[in-house]
Amino acid sequence: MIHFDNDYMAGATDEIIKQLTLTNMEKTVGYGLDDYTAKAIKLILDACNLQNKGYVHFMTGGTQTNATVIDALLQNWQGVIATEEAHINVHESGAIETGGHKVLVIPSKDGKLAAADIDSYVTDFYKDDTWQHKVEPGMVYISFPTELGTLYSLDELKAIHNICQKHDIPLYIDGARLGYGLAASGITLPEFASACDIFYIGGTKVGALFGEAVVTSNPALLPHFMTRVKQHGGLLAKGRLLGIQFATLFTDDLYMRISRHAIAMAQRLKKAFVSNGYKLFIDSPTNQQFFILPNEVMDEMRKHFSFEIWGVKGQSETAVRFVTSWATTEKEIEALEEFLDKHNIQH
Amino acid sequence: MIHFDNDYMAGATDEIIKQLTLTNMEKTVGYGLDDYTAKAIKLILDACNLQNKGYVHFMTGGTQTNATVIDALLQNWQGVIATEEAHINVHESGAIETGGHKVLVIPSKDGKLAAADIDSYVTDFYKDDTWQHKVEPGMVYISFPTELGTLYSLDELKAIHNICQKHDIPLYIDGARLGYGLAASGITLPEFASACDIFYIGGTKVGALFGEAVVTSNPALLPHFMTRVKQHGGLLAKGRLLGIQFATLFTDDLYMRISRHAIAMAQRLKKAFVSNGYKLFIDSPTNQQFFILPNEVMDEMRKHFSFEIWGVKGQSETAVRFVTSWATTEKEIEALEEFLDKHNIQH
Amino acid sequence: MIHFDNDYMAGATDEIIKQLTLTNMEKTVGYGLDDYTAKAIKLILDACNLQNKGYVHFMTGGTQTNATVIDALLQNWQGVIATEEAHINVHESGAIETGGHKVLVIPSKDGKLAAADIDSYVTDFYKDDTWQHKVEPGMVYISFPTELGTLYSLDELKAIHNICQKHDIPLYIDGARLGYGLAASGITLPEFASACDIFYIGGTKVGALFGEAVVTSNPALLPHFMTRVKQHGGLLAKGRLLGIQFATLFTDDLYMRISRHAIAMAQRLKKAFVSNGYKLFIDSPTNQQFFILPNEVMDEMRKHFSFEIWGVKGQSETAVRFVTSWATTEKEIEALEEFLDKHNIQH
Amino acid sequence: MIHFDNDYMAGATDEIIKQLTLTNMEKTVGYGLDDYTAKAIKLILDACNLQNKGYVHFMTGGTQTNATVIDALLQNWQGVIATEEAHINVHESGAIETGGHKVLVIPSKDGKLAAADIDSYVTDFYKDDTWQHKVEPGMVYISFPTELGTLYSLDELKAIHNICQKHDIPLYIDGARLGYGLAASGITLPEFASACDIFYIGGTKVGALFGEAVVTSNPALLPHFMTRVKQHGGLLAKGRLLGIQFATLFTDDLYMRISRHAIAMAQRLKKAFVSNGYKLFIDSPTNQQFFILPNEVMDEMRKHFSFEIWGVKGQSETAVRFVTSWATTEKEIEALEEFLDKHNIQH
Repeated sequence: MIHFDNDYMAGATDEIIKQLTLTNMEKTVGYGLDDYTAKAIKLILDACNLQNKGYVHFMTGGTQTNATVIDALLQNWQGVIATEEAHINVHESGAIETGGHKVLVIPSKDGKLAAADIDSYVTDFYKDDTWQHKVEPGMVYISFPTELGTLYSLDELKAIHNICQKHDIPLYIDGARLGYGLAASGITLPEFASACDIFYIGGTKVGALFGEAVVTSNPALLPHFMTRVKQHGGLLAKGRLLGIQFATLFTDDLYMRISRHAIAMAQRLKKAFVSNGYKLFIDSPTNQQFFILPNEVMDEMRKHFSFEIWGVKGQSETAVRFVTSWATTEKEIEALEEFLDKHNIQH
Repeated sequence: MIHFDNDYMAGATDEIIKQLTLTNMEKTVGYGLDDYTAKAIKLILDACNLQNKGYVHFMTGGTQTNATVIDALLQNWQGVIATEEAHINVHESGAIETGGHKVLVIPSKDGKLAAADIDSYVTDFYKDDTWQHKVEPGMVYISFPTELGTLYSLDELKAIHNICQKHDIPLYIDGARLGYGLAASGITLPEFASACDIFYIGGTKVGALFGEAVVTSNPALLPHFMTRVKQHGGLLAKGRLLGIQFATLFTDDLYMRISRHAIAMAQRLKKAFVSNGYKLFIDSPTNQQFFILPNEVMDEMRKHFSFEIWGVKGQSETAVRFVTSWATTEKEIEALEEFLDKHNIQH
Repeated sequence: MIHFDNDYMAGATDEIIKQLTLTNMEKTVGYGLDDYTAKAIKLILDACNLQNKGYVHFMTGGTQTNATVIDALLQNWQGVIATEEAHINVHESGAIETGGHKVLVIPSKDGKLAAADIDSYVTDFYKDDTWQHKVEPGMVYISFPTELGTLYSLDELKAIHNICQKHDIPLYIDGARLGYGLAASGITLPEFASACDIFYIGGTKVGALFGEAVVTSNPALLPHFMTRVKQHGGLLAKGRLLGIQFATLFTDDLYMRISRHAIAMAQRLKKAFVSNGYKLFIDSPTNQQFFILPNEVMDEMRKHFSFEIWGVKGQSETAVRFVTSWATTEKEIEALEEFLDKHNIQH
Repeated sequence: MIHFDNDYMAGATDEIIKQLTLTNMEKTVGYGLDDYTAKAIKLILDACNLQNKGYVHFMTGGTQTNATVIDALLQNWQGVIATEEAHINVHESGAIETGGHKVLVIPSKDGKLAAADIDSYVTDFYKDDTWQHKVEPGMVYISFPTELGTLYSLDELKAIHNICQKHDIPLYIDGARLGYGLAASGITLPEFASACDIFYIGGTKVGALFGEAVVTSNPALLPHFMTRVKQHGGLLAKGRLLGIQFATLFTDDLYMRISRHAIAMAQRLKKAFVSNGYKLFIDSPTNQQFFILPNEVMDEMRKHFSFEIWGVKGQSETAVRFVTSWATTEKEIEALEEFLDKHNIQH
């Protein structure tokens, strides 16, 4: 069986396993106050061009990161603007609401918010005489890439950031797949970091065993953050495990190298589908690819490949998601190409 | 100035003021354990045909009631299905989310949910392989009348209730304006009570100084409810104030008599607009009436009458809401009729 | 049966009932934005000598007030310092914890905190290397009078306030029985208001049907407070009911006049017990009086008088609480005096 | 520098690192639904003698586990009984309160609760007429070993469990250092598992990189637990990392072998202090050892050894904690012995 279900099926890059093994029996202080973590923080701030002015905190997983960061950013009378499909609105078991905050869904397209829509929403909010009876928009959450695999252009990000600054609310970007988004778009980390207030660099889906690096250019946004992280159950005793992994990912450009590999694999995969007559369900430039498969092909394919049904199985054809990652091999792609060539449905 | 802003502008019916005055210097036990409250509970259970099997608890206001009841009904991994316009989704400052629960908005029409849409939503929820990562639908919330002044028919209520029973989730009805809904629809309290699991009888908007009576035919839905009410800041020390008011409202059919008066006033008001050429914004059978006014008429009207702009003022015409209540007088309606007759815009 | 159970058994002063009746059919805007409320706010600020610099918000009951104010004052990583017996630590069904905050109990004596103990606690907190893993002390809560009927002197209040200012945390005083405390101590409202950052003036137990007036000399402590109140279910639709009551209480010194009456009644009551040989359980100068009764006297007394057992009934004697209020009559006290004179247990 | 600060300074046992390396590039399903996790669950249930009737869920860290399990066990009107020193009461940044629950501190001795005290507390709770205004005791939390390094005997655990069963509330045991407690006491896992309702087997402090295994003989205690874990930010995407680690720890008795080693090291360490005239601060049989050091010895010692000051540095002598673990080497102990022999303070 060859797996394209998602991008968190394998362990970590060899480099990370090697570093974890090498350092394993060292004894260091806990909770991320060790030297490895300090080194990782420095490497990331350098990579983001946030030397001497940024703040980095490592966490274990995406939902934990979103719940903690959003709870830290919002006042208790505020909610977070997001799309209908936002991970925080759908697939986090209500962690944001468990923290007491409302997800304020506004219209979106292809999984993306538009600066103008955010502007209208916030502007109209205060025009409503009953606004004190409503949940104040306190921040904006977007994902890069989005949950539908799509990307904001740098200009789109800047436009949203400008609107957020106009209304004095922070822009937070969920970067669970940030490497793949940067690799596909060509946006650089410094460009990205300057187009928002706070974001996280996903490790779990991009080369690490686990781990996400919260980065902000404005440390005042996260007061008493270590305590908040602990409250949210996210403070890892052996914090160096995160430091070691991220220090490795940000040495010799490893994070971007493996990200570019995943995108190259995704492009070959997409081409294999399209050239054999399969329809795109969503046109995605990133490592998540969405197709519409005739059910008979899908059923045959599932004997050899695993992937996700996107939503519910249809009558005669079904939307599916194929995901590549840093761990996808050329050999796996070749096997898929071979299968699709044999199942060409072009008329 | 004549007021049609809303239905909580005046105090209480004369009967209530009289009873509060008469009992004022009596000394009774607190927290609703007094005889007046016991009497009110009995009168309400009788009126609902829930003798010997129902449970009634009095609370102070609508948001408090919704937040407490919904928090009591839901498990911590569950959310509440509601319309986009639902009071709990818009105008309660996020009280439901403060309690840790997500409002699950599903499609609606004219402020109303349809049984079939609830059925699909819940059925599809468990078909999704990722459902454990999502917020489980744990109950349904509707308003009667709705936030748009519209009404469910008894058959519609029964259909929704059946779907809820099929999925083993309670149906809770926000009855902030229940009297007006019953008066306008002709549905009786026993019919209404049997078409849901739990609801509240609004007092604040229907004759009382304040107070809402939570009624359920299934007391097991509200375990340790007094403690939950106290946690939510809703336990009134002098609980008898609620008992006295509701005992009065449910003596000699007072609650329904004043409700019918408000509906009669609303119908005269609506007729006055329509017969003079004004357009309905929403066609409502209840005490909330929605019209579209040319801005110049609206501006003139505001010199003599107060009412609510519904949303934001338009370029040339604006949607507005006029509300009658138990306290609306014939004289107030006559003044409005006179104004509208003078401002006939029929072509 | 003559009742000394507590101080919230009767309705409201005649003056309040009269005002509520007089204004009953007026139509005013809701949520405390009406003129009566504005007038009450002005009267209270004047009475506290906080003209032009203070902020007043009316709420419905004590637990609601404590839960909302404390939630508003604290950051989410902070807790509230209090005594073991504090109302918020015992008798509010965990409303503070429901809001996400820990009650930090520190040693106390006779229901009172000492400035030095607060100082040590906060100072030592930050000396502990693990403080970021602990709940930061974010404010101090005391009651005046305390839950045991005792009083802080003005110097004691000032000392605590100074320590709070030293550590930059607000001092909040629960004034559920504030009138009785002021009447018993001779401390004036302006003195009291200047010896803390925020407090509430209890109405429920001192002359009103219900209602507490939150007062602060530092409005910045309560950002977006109306929204927070609504979230906590404490925003009364007919807010004027609170305004009318407090405007009445703060006209012609009514609040202090009825408070002084309750204290006079308490002193007669205390004297009746003591002079007939009964032991004090706690020596209280306020309207709550605590005695130790031989069980046979207690059982006999309960045929004619109601009062509270303080804790659990003992083997041969039991601690009890008698409470007077604005509504206690001379006749009620005389009946008690007569009983006690007949049951003199002096040796 | 030789480290005795705590038991989470090193990585993981060689066996775990080897298994993580061997399985690293495999692709498996996420969220703990993989075969490695299934195997670990089976091994643990076997080791606990809970075959076919127990439930195991792996989590990442101790505070996360406590917050999630306690939130899952309690109804929203309930709190958790614990000692003053309980980890949940002191060192979890208020995570229990963030989840809405009160920690109900009752008297304890040497960090331990007594069955009789729990019995009195719960019994008296319901004798208090105002119990509905208080936080109901909904479960008992104890730690094994305790935060002070002490141990309950099996009889003490059974007595507490019996009292919990009498009152129908679950007994939950925090086993962050469970291996060390079992090794020091001779209690077996099946004995331990049958003396409570739910507990966790600590991995972070006993051989794993991270991870705790929640074990219960009564799966009904944790409804919808995966969703609750996700809400609390504790669902690890690559869940197999936990499965692999625990499967390794529960193969060939590794967990108990390394635990016994740590206890042997602790005993040598203790002997080295005592035989050289140092006083015990607490007499602990487990891997946490507490001594009182003259400040001049302590200052000298800190040049070569790291350890924790327990509380605040004293005037002339100071309480300190030394901790051994699975990773403590004989060589490290020998160095300490040598130092102490040179600094013999026996008179």
